[in-house]
Amino acid sequence: MTVKAVVFDAYGTLFDIQSVASITEQAFPGYGGIITQIWRIKQLEYTWLRSLMRRYQDFSVITRDSLTYTLRCLSLQSDPAVFERIMDKYLHLDLYPDVRATLAAMHGRKLAILSNGSTGMLNALVRNSGLDRLLNATISIDSKRIFKPSPDAYSLIEEQLGAAPEETLFVSSNPWDACGAKAFGLNVAWIERVTPEAIAEACVRNDLIAPLTMFKAIRTQMDELGLEPDYRIHTLSELPALVAAHES
Amino acid sequence: MTVKAVVFDAYGTLFDIQSVASITEQAFPGYGGIITQIWRIKQLEYTWLRSLMRRYQDFSVITRDSLTYTLRCLSLQSDPAVFERIMDKYLHLDLYPDVRATLAAMHGRKLAILSNGSTGMLNALVRNSGLDRLLNATISIDSKRIFKPSPDAYSLIEEQLGAAPEETLFVSSNPWDACGAKAFGLNVAWIERVTPEAIAEACVRNDLIAPLTMFKAIRTQMDELGLEPDYRIHTLSELPALVAAHES
Repeated sequence: MTVKAVVFDAYGTLFDIQSVASITEQAFPGYGGIITQIWRIKQLEYTWLRSLMRRYQDFSVITRDSLTYTLRCLSLQSDPAVFERIMDKYLHLDLYPDVRATLAAMHGRKLAILSNGSTGMLNALVRNSGLDRLLNATISIDSKRIFKPSPDAYSLIEEQLGAAPEETLFVSSNPWDACGAKAFGLNVAWIERVTPEAIAEACVRNDLIAPLTMFKAIRTQMDELGLEPDYRIHTLSELPALVAAHES
Repeated sequence: MTVKAVVFDAYGTLFDIQSVASITEQAFPGYGGIITQIWRIKQLEYTWLRSLMRRYQDFSVITRDSLTYTLRCLSLQSDPAVFERIMDKYLHLDLYPDVRATLAAMHGRKLAILSNGSTGMLNALVRNSGLDRLLNATISIDSKRIFKPSPDAYSLIEEQLGAAPEETLFVSSNPWDACGAKAFGLNVAWIERVTPEAIAEACVRNDLIAPLTMFKAIRTQMDELGLEPDYRIHTLSELPALVAAHES
């Protein structure tokens, strides 16, 4: 089966959201890691809750609200300039090291992002990272006013790229996103960035269960949602060979 | 305005879901608390994700799947009998101490549960705790095949009790549930069981950020969803006076 389009999730898949920790740690020494983890959990929860409540707000509002929650929860006070400096990092996230080479190796196929991010956030992020020169499209779920894993969000791929689900490979490191894409009918490669062995090793050492490890574990391990991605890879660099094999 | 019906969330509001920790600790010494916290986070996530994916499974399936995830995540092996013993506790959760007296004090009004729990789970829970003698109805969202905070779930109150949203007081300790009920148009009392001061005090002691405190914090503090409950109380026993004041 031909792979006409390879479509990537953005946050956590192409862009390293953990890279905000450098800024949060600078702003709140000792708290960089925990802020990053709680912020992410709440950011995701708010996308799902607002979708279900039919109270859509775009991802920039949700990202801001979830940061507000996180700082309040940790009893941390920030002045507006610090808050904005942290928020600004979301427009300048680090790329995973293998992104550019992977996209370049698949030149000729339709390459795109499908993300919960707002149009404004995604355009800035793609421009700031230089990915605009390697991608054919950057698709925000904004126009549907509902977040992934709603099928409405994934339907944007065919609408905007003209690639049917069976001709599309969707790539995400987020377990719930990989499951949502699979439920919709896309071919799915899930990036398992943190292995169960690494979690097991890190989380139990002399009966110490580290909070950061636990937060990471519940975000990185494949979920029990009755769905299995078609492929399980560990780095983006495995993709060009995987696509070739899928077609043969 | 008359309060015709007082409707309660079940898990975490009338029934103490933390009471499973006694069983999980027995089964996995040292892990009782962390299992309980991860299990709850994943249980909630799966209700929201399955609702959005339009892959409804009832709460007993989700409760089982999220326990499976939790044990896998922590690299814990359980035999089937242990797994079932933990699951069974969900049908025998402890009541918060002030539940019976509070319900008895509001006798004469329509008193009900509206819960994500499946019909089977809720009926067992209400019978095992003796609450069936104090409640007029136990409503599961099962018939709608979508979980709270979808408006479809809250619409069951009027459908089954004949009480309009403005005549109903909805009571929940779950911040997202209080927001969902408010978005739907119900009067809402949110039970703040863990104060911000308690979180602040527990979470930072000599730079130690305890994982259990953090997990508890992100489940108990009011969310940033652009909605405010009408009332913020600390125990159920405040309700009879609150209802009387609301009517005056």
